[in-house]
This record gives sequence, C-alpha cells and structure tokens, in this order.
Amino acid sequence: MSWFSESIMALRGVAKGISGETHSLTEQAQGEYHYLYSPYNKPVLTVDPGAVIVAETHDAFYGKIQHESDRPSEIIKFPFVNPQNGPIYINGAEKGDTIAVYIKKIEPRGEQPRGTTLIQPGFGGLVPTPDTAMITPPLPELIRKLEVTVERGTKWNENLYLPYEPFIGTIGTSPEIEAISSLVPDYYGGNMDLPDVAPDAVIYLPVSVEGAYLYLGDCHATQGDGEICGTALEHPSVTTVQVDLIKGWSIKTPRLENRTFYMSIGSTRPMEDATRMAYLDLIHWLSKDFGFDEIDAYMLLTQVGRVRLGNMVDPKYTVGASIQKTFAGALRLP
Amino acid sequence: MSWFSESIMALRGVAKGISGETHSLTEQAQGEYHYLYSPYNKPVLTVDPGAVIVAETHDAFYGKIQHESDRPSEIIKFPFVNPQNGPIYINGAEKGDTIAVYIKKIEPRGEQPRGTTLIQPGFGGLVPTPDTAMITPPLPELIRKLEVTVERGTKWNENLYLPYEPFIGTIGTSPEIEAISSLVPDYYGGNMDLPDVAPDAVIYLPVSVEGAYLYLGDCHATQGDGEICGTALEHPSVTTVQVDLIKGWSIKTPRLENRTFYMSIGSTRPMEDATRMAYLDLIHWLSKDFGFDEIDAYMLLTQVGRVRLGNMVDPKYTVGASIQKTFAGALRLP
Amino acid sequence: MSWFSESIMALRGVAKGISGETHSLTEQAQGEYHYLYSPYNKPVLTVDPGAVIVAETHDAFYGKIQHESDRPSEIIKFPFVNPQNGPIYINGAEKGDTIAVYIKKIEPRGEQPRGTTLIQPGFGGLVPTPDTAMITPPLPELIRKLEVTVERGTKWNENLYLPYEPFIGTIGTSPEIEAISSLVPDYYGGNMDLPDVAPDAVIYLPVSVEGAYLYLGDCHATQGDGEICGTALEHPSVTTVQVDLIKGWSIKTPRLENRTFYMSIGSTRPMEDATRMAYLDLIHWLSKDFGFDEIDAYMLLTQVGRVRLGNMVDPKYTVGASIQKTFAGALRLP
Amino acid sequence: MSWFSESIMALRGVAKGISGETHSLTEQAQGEYHYLYSPYNKPVLTVDPGAVIVAETHDAFYGKIQHESDRPSEIIKFPFVNPQNGPIYINGAEKGDTIAVYIKKIEPRGEQPRGTTLIQPGFGGLVPTPDTAMITPPLPELIRKLEVTVERGTKWNENLYLPYEPFIGTIGTSPEIEAISSLVPDYYGGNMDLPDVAPDAVIYLPVSVEGAYLYLGDCHATQGDGEICGTALEHPSVTTVQVDLIKGWSIKTPRLENRTFYMSIGSTRPMEDATRMAYLDLIHWLSKDFGFDEIDAYMLLTQVGRVRLGNMVDPKYTVGASIQKTFAGALRLP
Repeated sequence: MSWFSESIMALRGVAKGISGETHSLTEQAQGEYHYLYSPYNKPVLTVDPGAVIVAETHDAFYGKIQHESDRPSEIIKFPFVNPQNGPIYINGAEKGDTIAVYIKKIEPRGEQPRGTTLIQPGFGGLVPTPDTAMITPPLPELIRKLEVTVERGTKWNENLYLPYEPFIGTIGTSPEIEAISSLVPDYYGGNMDLPDVAPDAVIYLPVSVEGAYLYLGDCHATQGDGEICGTALEHPSVTTVQVDLIKGWSIKTPRLENRTFYMSIGSTRPMEDATRMAYLDLIHWLSKDFGFDEIDAYMLLTQVGRVRLGNMVDPKYTVGASIQKTFAGALRLP
Repeated sequence: MSWFSESIMALRGVAKGISGETHSLTEQAQGEYHYLYSPYNKPVLTVDPGAVIVAETHDAFYGKIQHESDRPSEIIKFPFVNPQNGPIYINGAEKGDTIAVYIKKIEPRGEQPRGTTLIQPGFGGLVPTPDTAMITPPLPELIRKLEVTVERGTKWNENLYLPYEPFIGTIGTSPEIEAISSLVPDYYGGNMDLPDVAPDAVIYLPVSVEGAYLYLGDCHATQGDGEICGTALEHPSVTTVQVDLIKGWSIKTPRLENRTFYMSIGSTRPMEDATRMAYLDLIHWLSKDFGFDEIDAYMLLTQVGRVRLGNMVDPKYTVGASIQKTFAGALRLP
Repeated sequence: MSWFSESIMALRGVAKGISGETHSLTEQAQGEYHYLYSPYNKPVLTVDPGAVIVAETHDAFYGKIQHESDRPSEIIKFPFVNPQNGPIYINGAEKGDTIAVYIKKIEPRGEQPRGTTLIQPGFGGLVPTPDTAMITPPLPELIRKLEVTVERGTKWNENLYLPYEPFIGTIGTSPEIEAISSLVPDYYGGNMDLPDVAPDAVIYLPVSVEGAYLYLGDCHATQGDGEICGTALEHPSVTTVQVDLIKGWSIKTPRLENRTFYMSIGSTRPMEDATRMAYLDLIHWLSKDFGFDEIDAYMLLTQVGRVRLGNMVDPKYTVGASIQKTFAGALRLP
Repeated sequence: MSWFSESIMALRGVAKGISGETHSLTEQAQGEYHYLYSPYNKPVLTVDPGAVIVAETHDAFYGKIQHESDRPSEIIKFPFVNPQNGPIYINGAEKGDTIAVYIKKIEPRGEQPRGTTLIQPGFGGLVPTPDTAMITPPLPELIRKLEVTVERGTKWNENLYLPYEPFIGTIGTSPEIEAISSLVPDYYGGNMDLPDVAPDAVIYLPVSVEGAYLYLGDCHATQGDGEICGTALEHPSVTTVQVDLIKGWSIKTPRLENRTFYMSIGSTRPMEDATRMAYLDLIHWLSKDFGFDEIDAYMLLTQVGRVRLGNMVDPKYTVGASIQKTFAGALRLP
C-alpha cells in the first residue's frame, strides 16, 4: 500500500484521493498564459475534486530565450515574466477550504536544448538587486542553453550531468482580491521555487475565492537550495497533477506532504522571518492535528526539525520547515 | 517668492505648477472606496495637469472603530483595510512619465472623537506578526478614541496634547498589471506612512499605466517614526492636493521635495534594504539632475544624508533618504 | 538656568554634574591606543566622578592616511582600526551602575588637510561586504583629504562647505569579560557612529566591570545618517568630556539626553531589530522613570517617537529612538 | 579505502591525516573551562599535528541544570554560559594557516538523565529576545531532563526516541586579538550549532594566532535545523578528535568536508547574509581548488547547492552551503 493512501489528501479529500476525469491543458487549450495570481482571470478549466490535469507549461521566459547569444535584458520585460497555466476552477471550493494537489509526473517537452539558466542584471542572490540596492555594477549577462532529458538529466558539460529532479517552481491559488505578479511567493503559494514540490508529493493550498483558481507553471529540471543566480534549470514541461478538495481544514500558508515528512512553507523577508513563519505553522499543525502540546512541539522541532531553503532571489524568500512522519505520528502510536 | 515656484513640479510640470480647475471628491462623489492599488478600478475623476482635488478621506478603518469598547479583531477584516479615494485619471499621463502631487492642505473632518489609534493582534513593530512569527501570545486589543483639532492637536490626556502635524499615509499610482492591497507600500507609493508626505511638500510618483490612476487616503493627525504600534493617529480628513504631470522624467521609486530637502523613498524588507534603495535612488538623482559624479554623491551623502523611517509595521518597511537643497544645488552655484 | 542642571546626570550623579578635576589625556599620556573594548587593558587614568577629561583622539586610521594617493587596502589592517583613548577608571563604579558622560567640546587638531573620508573594498552600506557577500566586484579605492576648521567646516569643494557638526563616533565602557574590536557597537556603546553623541549631550553607559573602563575615540567632523560609504569625515580631535557616576540606575543599552530629547540606543542586525531594541528600551525607560504605563508609552511613541540612524556599515547597525522632553515629562506636570 | 584518505586533511595536512599521539583532556586536566574564544587564555595542551585529543566536555550549562524543577533564569548567568575545553596549542600553526579537525567519536557521559533542553526567557528563535525585542511577554521557563544513550538515543516520551546523532555545537580557533563569548559563532568557528560538525567529518578552521588555540565543547545528542527553542539536546560528552595543520591554505571562514560533500559556513545576521557568505566562500573554493570559473560555479550551485541551517538563536545565525563531491570534482575527471 502506498504512503499516498494514508495522506491527508486521501483521508480527508472530497474525492478521497481517487483519480477522476483527466483534463488536457495543452498550450492551445490554455491560450493566453498569465503573469498574475489573480481572481480576475477567466478559468480555463472547471473540474471536480479528483480531476487529473495534464498541463503544458512554459519556462519562466515563455520560451523566448533560445540562444546563448540572446540578451536577457532585451527579452525579459518585467512584470511579463513567469507565465502560468490556469486558473483552474475547482468545483465546490470555498474561502476557508484547502485544496490538495498531488504531483504525479513532470516531463520535459520541446526541442533541445530546452533547458535555460541565465544571469540577468539586478536579479540573483549574490548580486545587487533593486531591493538589496548597491552602487557597484551588475554581472555581465550570460545565458546557458542546456540539453535536458529524463534519463540523463541536464548536460552541464562533457564531464557533468545533473540528475533530472524536476519540480513545480510556481503553484498556488488566487488571493482574495489582490492580483499579484507570478514572480512573488506568498501565503497562497506562487513562486516558491521549493524543490520539494516534486513528483510524489502533495501540496496543500489555502482557498481564498470560490473555485480556488489554481495556477501553476515554471517547472525546473533541477535546482539548488536558494536558486542563487536567480534562474534554476528552467524548462517547458508536461506536468500531471491530481487535485482534491478538503472541506473543514483551513490553512494559512502552503503545506506539503510526501512519503517521509510534513512541511509548512513560509515566504517573506528577511529569511529568518520566513523560517519563523514556517516553523510556527508547523507547530500549530502538530498541535491541532497530531495531538502535541504547542510547547512540546516547539521543543521537539528544536531537536528534529528540518529546514529547506526554496528561493532567496524572489521578492519574498521561501523556506520550508518539516518533520519526519515517524516523529509527527509518535503520539498516535498505541 | 515661494520655494514652490522653484520646485521640479513648477519648473518641469506640464501645468508649470499653476493651479487649474478644482474638483471635489466628496464621500458621495467617491462612492465606493478602494482597498487595492489597481488598474482595474474605474476612475472617479478625470483631470488635467494642474487640477486641484479636494478629497474626503476615510480613516484606515472606514470609520468603523467608534468606541473604545469596540473589538478591533471583530471589525477589521483583512484585506478590507485602508480605504482609498480614487483612482484619479490624469490626462496625458503615460507609462514612464512622473506625476507630481503638491499637498496643499489636510484638515480633520467628522464628529469627535475623530482620532483613532489601537492595538490589534498580529500587527505592530514590537509584537509578533504573521511575518515575524512567534510562539508567544499577542498583546490584548486596545482602542483609543481621541479628540483632534487643527488648533490644539490631539488630546492624549489631560496633560498632553500632540501637535496637529497631518500627512497623507497612503498615496500612489497604479501598478502596471498588478492589483495590490492598499496596506502595502512599494515602488508606486502606497502605504508608506511617511510623515514627510505633508502639507507644503510635493511627492513625485512613477506612472505605470495610462492616466496614472492616482489613489490616496489614510491621513494621520500625527505619527512617530516607524508607527510602531501599527496605527498612527488615524482620522478622516479633507485633503487638498494639486496634481501635475512631468513628461520626460522617469523615476523608479517615489521622490519628495519640500522647502528644505530632496528625498528618495524605498520600501522593502529588511530595513537596511529599504535604506539602501532610498539612498541609491538619491545618488542616481544627484548624478542625473544635479551634476554630481555618482561616487562623489555617495561620499557626500555619507556626510550629510538624512534618513526618515516611515513605517516598520506594513508588509514592507518605508525609509526616506534626503539631502538638503543647499547641498544638492552646490554644483550649480556660479 | 541650563537644561543640564535638570539632566539625569546632574540630578542623580554622585558629583551632581559639577565639574571636578581636569585631566589631560594627550597622545603622550595615552601612549598606546587600543583597538579593543576590553577589561584586560591597563587604565591610563583613574578619576573621580565629576572629572573633566581632555583627550587627544586619533582618527579611525591612526592618522596614517595622509595623501589622496595612498591605498587604503595597504594601510588599513583589520582589526587594527579605530584606535581608542582609555581605558579610564572611574572611582566607585561597579557592575550594575551607570556612568554619565557629558560632552563639553570637540575641536579638530593636527595639520591640514586633517579630514579624511575614503572608500575601501568590502566596507560600506551600498557595496558588497564580508557580511553582505556578493560575487560582484568592489568599488575602486578612493581617498579624499579635506580641510576642516571649526569656523568654516569641511571644504568639500570650491562651492560647498559642510558645517562643523562634530561628535564622538566611538565611546563606551568595557564588557564584563569579552574584549571586542573597537569597530563594533553593542550594549556597552562602542562604534555607534551616532551623530547625537555630540557636544551638549550626555551619554549614559552601563557599567560591567569595576571602574567602568571608559574608552572613546573616532571623532567625526560631520556625518550623515547611516555613514553609508563607511567613513564619515574622520579627523583627529581634542575632545573634552565630564564624567559622572550614577548609583542605583542600571541600564541595558546606551541612553542619551540633550536639551530637547531622551534617546535609547540599539545596535544589532537587521536594522529593524536595532530599532526594536531602541524603542523597547525607551518604553521601559518611560515606564520606570517617567510614570507611563508601558502600553501607553508604546502607543504614545507610535505618535511622537523619532528614529535616528547611526551607522549601517559596522558589524552591527546602530539606531537611536527618542522622545521630546516635553512629551516624556507630561505626566509630571501639575 | 576510506573517503578520509582522499580528504584535504589527509592530502595536505602536515601529518597527512595520520594519527599521532593521544592526549587525554579530562575534566581534571582541563581544570577551568572557558567562556571566551580568546588568545589570552593559557593553553591546556600543546600538541603536534596528527594528535588525537579525547576531551571531556560539559554541556552548555556546565551541568548545573539537574532537575526539571530548576529555574534556568536563576542558574544561567550570561556571559558564563557554554563552557569550552582548550585552548589547545598546535605546534607549527601560524596566522594564515588552516587547522583540520577530524571528528572521530562523540559519546555521552555522566549520570542519567544527562540530556537537557529548556526554554529560558529571552532566548530562542520564535520568541522575543534582546535583539528581536518585543513588548510582549516571554514564555514560561521550562526544563526537560532526558535520558540519552548511544544505542536508543534520547527518550522524548514513552512513544518517541530521537536517534543519537551527536555533533560538536561549538568549536573554533582564537580570534587574533579579540576575546569573544563562546555563545557567538563567527569566522573562527565558535557556537555554530551546525549538525554537520559530526563524527566522520573534518572541519577546517582559520588560524589567527600562533598555535591556533583550538577550543571545543557544547556537544549535542541531536538537533534540528535552527535549534529553534534555543537549546538542543545538550549533554556532556567524551569527544575524540584528530587535529592536523595545513600550511599554505588560508581560509576566511570555517569549511567542512565529509564523505559526501564540501561545505562553507557563514555566520551573521540576517539569515540571507549568512547564506550569501557561505555560498560565496564555496564559489571561491570551487574556483581556487577545483578549477571552476567563478561564474560557472555560481550557476552550478544554483542548480545543485544545498543549504543547512545551523542555529537561528545565537547572536549570529549560522548557515552551511555545500556541494556534493561528485559535482565538485567533475572538472578533474579524465
């Protein structure tokens, strides 16, 4: 029996984690991609809990970076960066609910070299940016176009292949009334760039509007913690997810579950605040759903909590705090 | 001759800083107030450069906090906080332009006690918040309703009156495609809570959409640097501003000019980054418009720059960096 | 009657703020200058409360930067930067006491051009540093040697003189057991670079060791908020201070008093934390010594508090939070 | 063949990573433990490169917290916290060298329950502290005394044992002239609380004084990332390390090597700066010792770098950035 059958999604979802109808969200079906997490876009799909969605995502640059001789500063025009599929309307979802998204598969698509990473002025973790503003000059622009396959991963150079460890860089629901750039991560998800949002994981997202309005895009073939130069191994993908709806479970920030751990995700600046946000939510979760006293959870996480840095380059930094399921479930053992 | 006749607004504005038609933006004329800095709202006024606008603003709570016995947590429902007048469409304004807003007058309105300050859970600079998340409990809620007059200021207690030093807490233009909560300050202005945005000052704001879409509201009867408990002396007002349009002058972040200084304004977290942002913009300004070499401006501001903290409680912190006009203009002297 | 006669120093000091013996701390009397705030150095002077000390201070570079053609990176060798006079042993001072230092006068000394400011690699507020580490290159080194006089101030260029507004950049007592670089500001004072530590102000410093071990140095002819390029207008000085000892008044962080306000000073990173530290201490001060309820003080400072940024370039940033004396004393009025 | 024989320590150390004489540093041999990383303490041992040292460490509280009914605030008196063994003088070590410390073994000692974790006022990652100062109250004090064994780990409760995953919380060399509290982590090591400083790892530390002056202590039976309540599973230990000396290799911040990765370690605030520091040092390392172009290393780490949070509770936060050896060594493959 798979771990998934014991997941919160399977146990509490309206569809009980059982696959329903499959919907194909091709480029053509999507039509216009979106640069906003917004309640003002028209849904491209309306689905029931249980629905499986197969989405053709673009890379963060809408595929416009095609040659290493291109100039990012001429092609990338903020805020028209990081195009998203969606919004997907999930029947029955209401403010205060939670949606669950099980990531079934991510595969690369498009012509080779289909992987892109680059350095652009004013973006990155170890360079001056509009926020961490400095009088010193930026790095020269630089593009790398790289071959990506499932089998061999990303060819970095003749000697070095990076394993294909794909994940969804940007996924979330719509804010209640705001329309926020898809470059931003926040309480509703968005551009978290957290490598744990990967196949065989479930991400839980708060619902702020009727129908939830699920967006996703920006899949990465691999990424290090922090995504320090600002762009992971960006690539277009075919991404397959299964959605479900959990009534009666309100969450304030994205949560994630996979085979081994439970994770809460915080996005803000500075990074210690993102970490605080993630850990405090995990404490509340352990308290409410796993029977821990809050202070006991605080002290236990001091001994066994794990932190994953998503990005340290977006307008907000993203951190996940997690606990192994064996520890989280300890109080329930007979 | 007033300093204003030598202001950038007067020298470079389409209307040359000369008052045009007066428009009354009463509560009735405004109709629905807005909680978003957004290009998706319909303009309530369309005006020419030079127009004078007399706006009836609400306090940050839409006047709903009426008694000290009220409970903020029952009345204040995020994101429906900080209602704004506008948007005002300024004829001729295009992306890349700058609008200038000269603040002519701010007067309190409404029945006494019309001033409000309060403590609400999860908001403030010296308490746990959703961003600076802590396991320790919040402060008890607390409301103070206070009498505010122009002549005597705010009556804090029998012994203590706080001078009436009003300013506009929230003012800005619309982002290009985003719709952002009026609680947030950013490159377009917004909820800066910077006491220098006061009568007899000009604030310059970047234009991202045709017509600029000017919003304003949230006037404070007085405020300390940082607005640490989270709410200044909030009050409804009649605020009179004169707008102008500057073609051929693109700015990246709000700037301000008054009788004595030029100021650049940065909003982000952590606070050192907001300060960096403000100072770097001021260096660029001194370089581009006042003839300074950038490094010379950097070293000169090291000796004479001044920093004003706006807020340290909003989703982004706001800092202004300024230089006295006598220093800024030194290179132009014969 | 001077404000000073009503100062905490005058009211509560052992010497009642009355001048005692004058001690001359010339270069020769000082002998070796110190690069540490340390209890392990031998006192150069032992004085009674009330003593007046006339100290010949060096600039932060021990006067070694003599020509604009020098190369800072060859001359400045960390941690041998920022030489200090002292330690001065104050008779009667014990752990838990507070010493008061009234700054009577600061005058420039040495041959012209005696002012120095410079850019050195890895130091400054708008450049990459060892702490805010970046992959982008530093600025080129640059030295400016400038004439400084009391009467005309600092000659920046033919058109521009900066008023002589001197203050003590570095002053403090010894930590209890640590020996900390004189580049660092902390709870005991040190390299705060706060322009309010100026003539006609009293700075209060906590005592951690018997005799207090007062150090001082690093006087600036003028400085902007934040000291952004990393070096103010550094100059050697003759600095005259009067010390006193306050028994039964324990403080946790430096405090300051002048004609118009009371100020608490915090030093840490990030800058919002330094601001929190300063404001919270000011709240405690208002509560303990001025009769305010803590929450009332918190809400009042929200309306009338003022923030001064000292440095944003040292290993810790320094922020002062202040309240006007008229507000602080309001509860005492009849 | 062990990975260790290919370590930098084995390849470049004066003793070639070969064990020399064993020295026993019992409580009695140590005598007075130290609360400072200081060049002013007298060495307790003088050893040659290759020496094996078996040290009896105390827990962070010198074993004074013996009962769950104790009150931490009455027992813990800053700065007399976190007692250290050493200093150990390493023959031949000079400023600019690097010492290597291979951690052979850590075992618990002392009577049961020998593990301690606790909550004390003003210390922790999710509570107000003197740095992140808040007006809200602290948590109540709380002590947990726990049984720790190698075989079963730490008994958290009847259902839950935490595996024994010990590491050295505090280890480092002396600063050049400063004497810093053993609570602080910095460029010389110190209180990093980084769980990778564990058996079968080598930590590399910069030498600032003749003899290096190695200190160590504060072993943890286990710890989560961030050590959020402020105290890991503290316990007294017998810790066995082997030291070596590397001439001609200067490092600016601690580095670490184990079977699988190379890591650079940064300590500062805010946390993004600690992460920047760690990553930039790793880039420099890959560039200087592994043949990477700096920009190539920057872009590669964007894809494969890993971040480990040590502590987010000490006066500086500690972050390690690492790269798998297979990636780091890729350029050397034939």
